Amino acid sequence: MSDLYYGVAYYDEYMPEDRLAQDIALMRETGINVVRIAESTWSTLEPQEGEYHFYHIDRVLNAMHQAGIAVIIGTPTYAVPAWLVAKHPDILVTTAEGQQKYGPRQIMDIVNPTFRRYAENIIRTLMAHVQNHPAIIGWQLDNETKHYDNVGRYMQEGFVRSLQEKYPSLDRLNHDFGLDYWSNRIDSWDDFPPVENTINASLACAFSRYQRQQVTEYLAWQAEIVREYAQPHQFVTHNFDFEWRGYSFGVQPRVDHFAAAKALDIAGVDIYHPSQKHLTGREIAFGGAITRALKGGNNYFVLETQAQGFAQWTPFPGQLRLQAFSHVASGAAMVSYWHWHSIHNSFETYWKGLLSHDFSRNATWQEATTIGADFARLSPQLAGLRAENDVALLINNEAMDALNQFRPGDAQGNVYNDIFRRFHDALYDHNIALDIINDVTEETSRYKTLIVPGLYAADDGLLTRINRYVEQGGRALIGFKSGFSDENVKVRSSVQPGILHSACGVTYSQFTLPEDVTVAACTSALDCREHNAAELWMELLTPAPGTRTLLRYQHPAWREYAAATEADYGKGRALYVGFLPQKTLISQLFDTLTDGLELRSRTSAYRYPLITRTLRNRDGKRIHFLFNYSGDSQEMLAETSGTELLSGKSVTLGEPLRLRGWEFSIIES
Amino acid sequence: MSDLYYGVAYYDEYMPEDRLAQDIALMRETGINVVRIAESTWSTLEPQEGEYHFYHIDRVLNAMHQAGIAVIIGTPTYAVPAWLVAKHPDILVTTAEGQQKYGPRQIMDIVNPTFRRYAENIIRTLMAHVQNHPAIIGWQLDNETKHYDNVGRYMQEGFVRSLQEKYPSLDRLNHDFGLDYWSNRIDSWDDFPPVENTINASLACAFSRYQRQQVTEYLAWQAEIVREYAQPHQFVTHNFDFEWRGYSFGVQPRVDHFAAAKALDIAGVDIYHPSQKHLTGREIAFGGAITRALKGGNNYFVLETQAQGFAQWTPFPGQLRLQAFSHVASGAAMVSYWHWHSIHNSFETYWKGLLSHDFSRNATWQEATTIGADFARLSPQLAGLRAENDVALLINNEAMDALNQFRPGDAQGNVYNDIFRRFHDALYDHNIALDIINDVTEETSRYKTLIVPGLYAADDGLLTRINRYVEQGGRALIGFKSGFSDENVKVRSSVQPGILHSACGVTYSQFTLPEDVTVAACTSALDCREHNAAELWMELLTPAPGTRTLLRYQHPAWREYAAATEADYGKGRALYVGFLPQKTLISQLFDTLTDGLELRSRTSAYRYPLITRTLRNRDGKRIHFLFNYSGDSQEMLAETSGTELLSGKSVTLGEPLRLRGWEFSIIES
Amino acid sequence: MSDLYYGVAYYDEYMPEDRLAQDIALMRETGINVVRIAESTWSTLEPQEGEYHFYHIDRVLNAMHQAGIAVIIGTPTYAVPAWLVAKHPDILVTTAEGQQKYGPRQIMDIVNPTFRRYAENIIRTLMAHVQNHPAIIGWQLDNETKHYDNVGRYMQEGFVRSLQEKYPSLDRLNHDFGLDYWSNRIDSWDDFPPVENTINASLACAFSRYQRQQVTEYLAWQAEIVREYAQPHQFVTHNFDFEWRGYSFGVQPRVDHFAAAKALDIAGVDIYHPSQKHLTGREIAFGGAITRALKGGNNYFVLETQAQGFAQWTPFPGQLRLQAFSHVASGAAMVSYWHWHSIHNSFETYWKGLLSHDFSRNATWQEATTIGADFARLSPQLAGLRAENDVALLINNEAMDALNQFRPGDAQGNVYNDIFRRFHDALYDHNIALDIINDVTEETSRYKTLIVPGLYAADDGLLTRINRYVEQGGRALIGFKSGFSDENVKVRSSVQPGILHSACGVTYSQFTLPEDVTVAACTSALDCREHNAAELWMELLTPAPGTRTLLRYQHPAWREYAAATEADYGKGRALYVGFLPQKTLISQLFDTLTDGLELRSRTSAYRYPLITRTLRNRDGKRIHFLFNYSGDSQEMLAETSGTELLSGKSVTLGEPLRLRGWEFSIIES
Repeated sequence: MSDLYYGVAYYDEYMPEDRLAQDIALMRETGINVVRIAESTWSTLEPQEGEYHFYHIDRVLNAMHQAGIAVIIGTPTYAVPAWLVAKHPDILVTTAEGQQKYGPRQIMDIVNPTFRRYAENIIRTLMAHVQNHPAIIGWQLDNETKHYDNVGRYMQEGFVRSLQEKYPSLDRLNHDFGLDYWSNRIDSWDDFPPVENTINASLACAFSRYQRQQVTEYLAWQAEIVREYAQPHQFVTHNFDFEWRGYSFGVQPRVDHFAAAKALDIAGVDIYHPSQKHLTGREIAFGGAITRALKGGNNYFVLETQAQGFAQWTPFPGQLRLQAFSHVASGAAMVSYWHWHSIHNSFETYWKGLLSHDFSRNATWQEATTIGADFARLSPQLAGLRAENDVALLINNEAMDALNQFRPGDAQGNVYNDIFRRFHDALYDHNIALDIINDVTEETSRYKTLIVPGLYAADDGLLTRINRYVEQGGRALIGFKSGFSDENVKVRSSVQPGILHSACGVTYSQFTLPEDVTVAACTSALDCREHNAAELWMELLTPAPGTRTLLRYQHPAWREYAAATEADYGKGRALYVGFLPQKTLISQLFDTLTDGLELRSRTSAYRYPLITRTLRNRDGKRIHFLFNYSGDSQEMLAETSGTELLSGKSVTLGEPLRLRGWEFSIIES
Repeated sequence: MSDLYYGVAYYDEYMPEDRLAQDIALMRETGINVVRIAESTWSTLEPQEGEYHFYHIDRVLNAMHQAGIAVIIGTPTYAVPAWLVAKHPDILVTTAEGQQKYGPRQIMDIVNPTFRRYAENIIRTLMAHVQNHPAIIGWQLDNETKHYDNVGRYMQEGFVRSLQEKYPSLDRLNHDFGLDYWSNRIDSWDDFPPVENTINASLACAFSRYQRQQVTEYLAWQAEIVREYAQPHQFVTHNFDFEWRGYSFGVQPRVDHFAAAKALDIAGVDIYHPSQKHLTGREIAFGGAITRALKGGNNYFVLETQAQGFAQWTPFPGQLRLQAFSHVASGAAMVSYWHWHSIHNSFETYWKGLLSHDFSRNATWQEATTIGADFARLSPQLAGLRAENDVALLINNEAMDALNQFRPGDAQGNVYNDIFRRFHDALYDHNIALDIINDVTEETSRYKTLIVPGLYAADDGLLTRINRYVEQGGRALIGFKSGFSDENVKVRSSVQPGILHSACGVTYSQFTLPEDVTVAACTSALDCREHNAAELWMELLTPAPGTRTLLRYQHPAWREYAAATEADYGKGRALYVGFLPQKTLISQLFDTLTDGLELRSRTSAYRYPLITRTLRNRDGKRIHFLFNYSGDSQEMLAETSGTELLSGKSVTLGEPLRLRGWEFSIIES
Repeated sequence: MSDLYYGVAYYDEYMPEDRLAQDIALMRETGINVVRIAESTWSTLEPQEGEYHFYHIDRVLNAMHQAGIAVIIGTPTYAVPAWLVAKHPDILVTTAEGQQKYGPRQIMDIVNPTFRRYAENIIRTLMAHVQNHPAIIGWQLDNETKHYDNVGRYMQEGFVRSLQEKYPSLDRLNHDFGLDYWSNRIDSWDDFPPVENTINASLACAFSRYQRQQVTEYLAWQAEIVREYAQPHQFVTHNFDFEWRGYSFGVQPRVDHFAAAKALDIAGVDIYHPSQKHLTGREIAFGGAITRALKGGNNYFVLETQAQGFAQWTPFPGQLRLQAFSHVASGAAMVSYWHWHSIHNSFETYWKGLLSHDFSRNATWQEATTIGADFARLSPQLAGLRAENDVALLINNEAMDALNQFRPGDAQGNVYNDIFRRFHDALYDHNIALDIINDVTEETSRYKTLIVPGLYAADDGLLTRINRYVEQGGRALIGFKSGFSDENVKVRSSVQPGILHSACGVTYSQFTLPEDVTVAACTSALDCREHNAAELWMELLTPAPGTRTLLRYQHPAWREYAAATEADYGKGRALYVGFLPQKTLISQLFDTLTDGLELRSRTSAYRYPLITRTLRNRDGKRIHFLFNYSGDSQEMLAETSGTELLSGKSVTLGEPLRLRGWEFSIIES
C-alpha cells in the first residue's frame, strides 16, 4: 500500500445493460484505482445448488486488470439465495420477534451448521476459481456481519454450553446473576429457559456477549478458509459498521470490533454521515478513531462511504472533497464509494452512487475526479499517515449492554452511544484528537489523558487498572455511572463509584433525574453562565477531604451536593462528573483536567467549524489538515509553517489564512 | 332513474325492537325513496349451514314496496358467520402479520375456493328467494371489497402462475425485476419464495397489482351469479371506497376502480369527509370525479355518506344540505346515508345515522326533510346532470404503488395520495372542475389540459401518448418523479424525466430533499412572495434550449437549477415542476400553462370557500351551483343569468349575491 | 392492631452477602416493626419439583421474632420457577398477542388446573412448615394478582360455560349483545368463536367481567387454603394495585377490588406516586379511599409504597414524612416500603429501597427514622382513625370497560380513569374528603352528596336507585355519558341520559366533540372567565321545564344548548354536566350543588397545595391533618383549636399557622 486507494463498489450483476467498458473508461477518468465486487451475489454465482456461474466475476477481473484497477473480492455470504431457503428454511435466523421471512439480506443464522456447510462451499468454490487472478489485492469476509439478534436454537444451546463451562455449579450462576429475584433461579441445566424474554439484565448481557462472540468466531472461520487459498501479498479485511440511526451513529452493539478484527490483516469500515448543512466530520472522526484502533493504529480502509447517497445527502459543492480528505486525516488508506452507479431496481434505488441512474457526468462525479487526481498526486505525502495522539477514550461493549439495560428515565435506544458521542463530539469540536481504546493496560500510560464515559459494568481488574493509570501520573475524566456494577452487571454493594472512588476521591449513595437543574462553577477556571444544564442523570456527590468541588447543582433540594469533582491521586489526577454536561462544559472540564499539560492531541486553538488534525507521514514530516466544516468562509492565523500541498504555496506561522465554505488546506511542515 | 334518489341504509336485523312501521312512516316524512339492505347479514340469513331465515328481508321488502320506497339488496358476503369459520378456519385471510382472527368484517380470503363455494351458495339462495320482488331496483355486490392484504397460499400460488404465463423464462423476470440484487434471483419456479417480505419493489408492485386483479375478478364473479337471477330493469352496482385516513382521503390502493367497475351497470361509492369547520367539499369533489369516470361520465350513486357520523362530524346547521347538493353537483344520482338509525351495540355505536339511538326527530333529521323535499321538487332539473369538463387529471394505481415504495425522506403512508390531493385540491380551490382519467388515449384529446402528478411508474407507451397529447395541442402539467421508472418499477437509465423529457424540454440527473428551500419566480406572471416553499422533493432541473424557466430554487448550493419549466412541443405546451408546490402556486402554474385558453372547467373567478360547478341537465340547460363552504356570509357578483331554483327568483349577470354561512344557490340558465 | 405499623419488604434471598443481623439492627434503629417476606420466591423455596428449601424463611422468621419485628408472609405464587415451565409450558398465560414467554413475573394462567395443582402444593408446603411460628401476624395471598389478559383455552371455555348458564337460549344472547351486527351471530354453542378479537363491545365487556371474576375466585381459593393452616389471630390480606401509568393512576381495570376483597380480613394495597415537585398527595388520597372502602371503612395496609423508588422519585427533604402521614390521614394502619434495600441485579435494580445498594445511612433513611419514632410515639392518638365523610363518589368496573370501548375522539388508554381522576382531583384540591362506593343502595343515603362520573353502562336497577337517592334528599353530580347504555353495553333507545333523565330533568339526542368550545355561566354563582374549556365530549342538552341551566356552550352552532343543568327532584337535587369541565369549574359546580349543606367532608376553606383531613380516633377525638403539598412556605389561620401532636403545642382557632415546604401539622381537638 504505497498509494492512497480511491475506490468504488461495482456490481456488473446489477447493470440494466452491458456497460463494463464504458464504466472502466469513466473510472479511469475519475482516478479510481480499486473496486470492490461480489459480496452480495451468491444467487448469481450459484443460481442452483452446485451450479456455478462466474461470468460477471471473470469479466470484471479481466477488464479491471487490463485497466490497472485493483480488485477486492468479498465472500458472497451475507445474502442467501432463494433455493437455499426453499431447501433449508431453518437457516433463516430466529429473533425475539420470531423467525425472519425471506427477502432482506442479513437474515441468516450464522451458527446454523447447514448454513455453514453451504457458505463454506460457495466460499471455497469462488476462492478456487479466482485465487490466482493478478487483479486481486485482497479479500473481504462477508459484509457488515452481525449476529442479527439471533435467539435461535443453536445460539441458545451454545450459550448454555458456554455457561456450563464457566460455571460447573449453578449455585454460583444463580448468585452472580441474582436469579433468585422473581423466581428466576435455575437449579438444573435441563430447565435452562430460553433467554430472549428474560428480565434478568445479567443473563441478558451475558447472552449478548455470547452473541457477539459468535460473530468473532464466524469471521475467524471465514478468514481461515479464505487464507487456505489467498496469496501472501493479498490482505484479508472486513467491512465493519456502526450503530445505525439513519447514519453511522456510534459504537456497534452487535459486534465486538476489537475481538473480531483479530482475524483480519487490515481493518475496514463503512462510514455514512449526515451531509449538506448537517455535515460536521464528527462521524468520520469517531469512526476513523475506532477503526484505526483495531489494528494497532495502522491505516484502515473506508470500504464504503457515500457519494450521493440518500436524497438528503446530495453533497453541496466542495463537500465530497472535504469528506475524502477528512478520512485521510483520520488515518484512512482508502476511500471507496458505495457505489459506482445507482441501482435501478429493488430496494436501495434511492441510495445513489457516484453516477446517477443515467450514468452521466454529474456535478458530484466531476468533483470526484479532482479527488482522484489529488490522491494520485499527493500519495507520496499522504499515504501511510500515523496519528500521534496522547488522549484516549475508553469504549466497551459490555458497559454499553449493561447501561442500556437500565436507561435513565425516559431515555430510549442506545443511550450509551448518546453519552459516548457527547464526550467524543465535545473533544472533536474542541480540536482534541483522540485515540479509542477498549481496555486499560500498562500501554495506556503512553496517553497523558484518559476519558471514561459510561463505564457502567466492569470487573475489579479494569477499575483497578484505571486507578493505577491515574496513580502513575495519568489524568482521567470519569463520567457518571462508571464503576457502578461488576462484570456480571451486579451493582456493587460498596460505596459508589465502586473501586474508582479511590482515584476520584468522591462518593455517592443517592442519585436522581435532573429536572430543570443547572450547575454552578466553584472555580474561576469554569464559566457556567451558559450551557449549564445537567442532563440525563445526576449523582449526589460528596467529595472526600482534599477533593476539589468543581461544580455544584443549582436546585433547592440538592444544592449541598457536588456535581463534578477533581482529586489528586498518586502522580495523577481524576475528574469525576456526576451528570451529562453539554459539550462546551465538557471541553472546559477537559481543559481544567489537563491544565499545564502539553498535549499533541490539542491540534489547534480554534474550534469547530474549523477542525484541524496533525499526523506524521512516512518521511517523518508532520501533515496538518485544516478543514472548514461550514458553508461560510473562515479566517484563521496559521498555526504552523510549511508548504500547503494542494496549492504548493508556502505558509508562515501566524499568517492569515482564509478557507472558503467547505474548503480545506493541507500543510506539510 | 328519472329522479334523484334520497336514501338510507336500513338494518331491521339490528333493531332493539320492532320499529318497521314507524321507521317507514318517518322515512316518508323525510323524503326517503330508496333503502339499502342486507349487505352484512349472512349470519342472520343463514344462521347455520343450509338453514335460511328470510324473515327480515321479506318483511322489509314487503313494507317498503307498500310504502313506495325502492330497495337495493346487497349480497351478504363481506362478513362471514361464526359457523363457517368454526368449520373452515382457513377461509380467514392471511396477511403479512399472520392469519386474521375472527371478529371483524372483511377478513376473508376472497380467493379461497371453500369461501367461494359458501359465498356462491348464499348469494344464489338469496337471489332465488327475492329475485321477483317488485320493490327491488338493483343489486349491490358485496361491500367495499378489497384484497384485505391477502398473502395467503392461494393468492401467492396464483401470483406465481400469473408470472409463469407472462415470463416463460425466469431470466427475463430476474432481469426485469432486478432480482440479482442482494441475491434475490429465482432460478427455478419451485424455489419461488413467499413475497410478503420481499425487498424488491418490482416484485412487490407486481404482487400488489395481482392482488387488485383478484378483487376485479371476484366482483365480476359475483356479478355473473347475480345476473343469472336479476331482472332486466335492475342494475348491478358496488359500493367502492377510498384510501381511509379517518375519512375518504384519496385513491384506493387496494382496488383498481376502473377495472373492477367494468362488471357494474352503475358505479357506487361511499364518501365520508371531515365536517363542522373542516368541511370543504374537497372529498365530495375528488370522490365524485373518480366515481363519475368509472362508467364513462355517467351519473353514479353515493351509496353511503354521513348523516351525523362520528361525534366530531355532527353537522352544523346547513351543512347536511350543502353536502347533499354538492354530491349532485359532482354528478351523483343518489345520496344515501349510512344509516337510518344509530346502532345500539357492537362496534359502530358511535357512527351515528340520521336518527340517534332514541329515534327522535333530531335537528339533523329535520334538515334532511328539506333535502328530501327539494330532491323531489327539483328532480326534473337536477336528475341526470352531466359534467362538461375540459381539464383531466391522471391517476394510476401502479404509479401509486411504485412511488409509495420509495417515499421521499421521512414521508409516511400513502404519499402518492398526498401529492394527488395537493394538485386536486389546488384546482378545486381555484374553481377548476376536472375529470379523472386513468390512461391517456386518443380520446384524451378532448381535454384541453392534462394534469399528471406523480406518474412514477409507466411503460413507454403511456409516456409516449402523453408526449403525443402535447404534440397535438394539449397542455400538460407534469409533476416531479413522473416518467422516472418503467412499468416494472425499474428506473430508466436514460436521461430523466425519461421519455417525457421530449415534451417537457427539461432534464435532470440529480435531486435532493428540500430543507428550508423556497422558489423564486422567473416570470412576472408568477408571484412567489408567499407560499413559496419547495416541499417533499426537489429535482435539479436543467432546461433544454428554448425551454422557459418559470421558477428557480432559492438556496446557496442549488440556485443554478430550475424548479419549474415550460416548453412548447408541437402544437401544445408542457409545464414541468420538479418539487411539490403549495396550492396557490399550483393554481398560478395552471393559469400560466392555460394562458389564452377558454376553459369550460374554469367555472368562476372566485376561489374557495366560494365553490362553483356548472353541469348540463337533460334539457340541455346549464345548471350553475354556488356553494359557500364557510360559516361566514359571502358576497359575490352573479357570473350568469338565470333562475335560482331553490327560491324561484331570477338572477342577472353581475347582480350582487349573498350566501349565508354554509348556504348554496342553484341557477338554471 | 393497636399500633401503627411501619414496615419494609425484605428479601434475604436477594442479598449479595449475609446481612441479616446488620439489617435487623438497622431496622430497629429505623423504627421498623413489621416486614413482608417471601411473596416472589417460589424458585428458592422449591428449587426442583418436590425439593424444599426453607433456609431463608426460617432464619428471617427467627431473627425477626427475636428482634420483636412482626412478619407477614406472602404465598410465593406470582412468579413461577423455570422447572415448572420446562415441565408444563402450557401454564404460561396466552394473551391476544400469543402465549407469553418465560422471564417476567405474573405471566401464569391462573385458571390452568396444572398451575393450580403446583401452586396449591407450594402454598400448603410453606404453610405447614411455618404455620406455628410466633413472628407471623398475617398472610398475604399472592401479589398484585390480575388476570394478565388471559384469553387462553381455560378462560374462554369457562366464559362460554358461564354464558350457557345465564342464557339457556342463544337467541337472547344474540339479542342482548346485538350479535346480528356484521354477521357476528352465534347459533350453536359449538360455534362459539374465540373472543379476543371480537368487535362486539357487549361480548368484550362480558368477557372482561368474567376475567375479573376469575381473579376473585383465585384469591378466594388461596384464602381458603391459607385459612386451613392460619391461626385465629393472624389476618389474611392481599396487595391490590391500581391502573399503572408509571405510577398508581386510577381504578384497576383487571380486578374487581370490591368483590375480591370479600376473601380478605384486611385490605392491602400498593400506592406509588409522582414525587419531587410532582408530589400532590392525590394518589395517596384516591388509593386510600378505594382501599378503605373495601372492608367497610376500616383501616387498611399500605403494603408497598416508595422510599426512594425510581430515580426521578428520590424524595426532597420532608417528602417521605409528608407521604407517610398522608397515608395515615387516609386511614392507613400500615406504611410499608418496597423495599428495605435496593436490589443489585436483574430488573428492578433502579427501583430503590430505603437503603441504597451500599446499605449506608443515606438522607432518605435518616428521615425514615423520624417517621418510625413518631409512629411509635403517636400510635395512641393515630392508630385506628376513621373517616367520617358525607360525600361519596361512585366507581364501577363495568362502566369503565364499556366507556373505554367507545373512547371519545382521539382519546387513548383508560379514559374512564382520566374522567374519574378529574372529578376526584377537583374535590381533593378543594379539600372535599370523600368515600368511594361501587354501588348505590339504601345505605348510600348516609351520604349527603354523590358524585357519579362516567357511569356509562348500568342496569335499570342502579339508575333507578340513583334517582331514588336524589328523590329522598340526596344531591347528585352526574357526569356526561352516565346512564347511556345498559348492563350489556347496549345503548338505551329511550331519551338520554336514560333513566337518569328523571332526576336530572334534562335530555339530549345529539352530541359532538368540543373543538375550541368554552362554556359560559348562566348564574352569578359560577365564574367562567377562566378554566372554561369544554373538554373531551359535549352533549347538546335540553333542560326540561323547571330545570335550571347552569352553563351554556359558547359556539356559533351550539349556543342554544345547555352544557350543565340543575334540577330539583323529590327532596333532593341533581346537577348534570354534559362535558368534561376543568377542575376549578367542577369545584364550583360542587359548591352550587351543595349550596346550604353542612358537610363534614368539607375540611377546610383553603385549597391545594394546602390539604386538610379530619378523622376521628379511638378516643372519639377529632384529628386534623394539615399538609403543605408544596416546596414553599404556606400561611393559614387555624380552623380548629387543639393540641399540635408533633410539637405538643396548643393551637387556637384563627391563630396564624405557618408550614414550611412539604411540612405538615396534626391537631387533636
